[in-house]
Amino acid sequence: MIYRKEVSIKTNGNDDIVDITHYAIEALNDSKVKDGILLIFVVGSTASITTIEYESGLVHDLKKILNELIPCNPSYKHHLAWNDDNGHSHLRASLIGPSIAIPFKNGKLDTGTWQQIVLIDFDTRPRSRTIIFQIVS
Amino acid sequence: MIYRKEVSIKTNGNDDIVDITHYAIEALNDSKVKDGILLIFVVGSTASITTIEYESGLVHDLKKILNELIPCNPSYKHHLAWNDDNGHSHLRASLIGPSIAIPFKNGKLDTGTWQQIVLIDFDTRPRSRTIIFQIVS
Amino acid sequence: MIYRKEVSIKTNGNDDIVDITHYAIEALNDSKVKDGILLIFVVGSTASITTIEYESGLVHDLKKILNELIPCNPSYKHHLAWNDDNGHSHLRASLIGPSIAIPFKNGKLDTGTWQQIVLIDFDTRPRSRTIIFQIVS
Repeated sequence: MIYRKEVSIKTNGNDDIVDITHYAIEALNDSKVKDGILLIFVVGSTASITTIEYESGLVHDLKKILNELIPCNPSYKHHLAWNDDNGHSHLRASLIGPSIAIPFKNGKLDTGTWQQIVLIDFDTRPRSRTIIFQIVS
Repeated sequence: MIYRKEVSIKTNGNDDIVDITHYAIEALNDSKVKDGILLIFVVGSTASITTIEYESGLVHDLKKILNELIPCNPSYKHHLAWNDDNGHSHLRASLIGPSIAIPFKNGKLDTGTWQQIVLIDFDTRPRSRTIIFQIVS
Repeated sequence: MIYRKEVSIKTNGNDDIVDITHYAIEALNDSKVKDGILLIFVVGSTASITTIEYESGLVHDLKKILNELIPCNPSYKHHLAWNDDNGHSHLRASLIGPSIAIPFKNGKLDTGTWQQIVLIDFDTRPRSRTIIFQIVS
């Protein structure tokens, strides 16, 4: 069985890290499915889905380390393609990836107490992002 | 059909890299399922699942490069949250991710001969980790 | 239901980034499945699957940043194991991972217009890679 829910989420871009755990729980509840896999996918090539302990210190630390590893840099060749300024956004998104799959049992996600699901928007401007919650059971 | 197996694995923390391929094969055999997808997920925000050629040189190299990219650093803001010392553990786990999905056919995983499935425990102390093997077919 | 397609792809190795989106679409069409999840997996421990906007500038930028983050380096311990020279290939593959799962609806993948699916071959020589497209519905 396949259940699907699409959610539109507004972000501030610029490495905005948004806790989307409650959307995942809502999709699970709406589906009425008890056991299976939840796939969470963000459409687009400048955003990612991962898990993190969602507290302000760590949110700060993640932005900082990504900025050090893959800096904003005017010399990216991508900027020549469309006169863009978001080469670093694409590179960070490709590294972390656009999706995550999480198992669930008895209608409860297997994520830990301090393990939230997050959308990271690496783009250089506010965006409206389409997140797909697809359940296989 | 959904088949599920939970396994508890003791680690030494501190970037302990544990080969869990035999647990995956055991889960597959126990399920009696011949064709499908195996999702492997670690509960918690300071550990990851990935694949690697499991030999001691490469295990050493992976620990070393992660320590260079995301160093232990007393200045992480996360340390202020709970007086923790594991900011780097969280950041590494978010980057690599908590799960991996692997297809299988005729009861055999599609991983290559030199491609083992590993749990990496980035936390700064020994832990008991819950790994979930969930099969969809 | 499980549908499976295996594709063999020749690469140049050395961080060759190959757009495999059309293979994914073909697998989806061949399966006749309308709604579900497509898992794309590369066999082996020196290659990865991810998504990126596939344009030459960004392809250049991704190779460059990975080379800076995880450089070719004769001092990797892995090189002692088999007299190999591809320690960096393994490390990059473990970081990005061997698989990606993408939802689809009405027979259409949910990837964005500028979000292509790519195989990256990190090995240090041309390879023939087995990619598995497995559909669960």
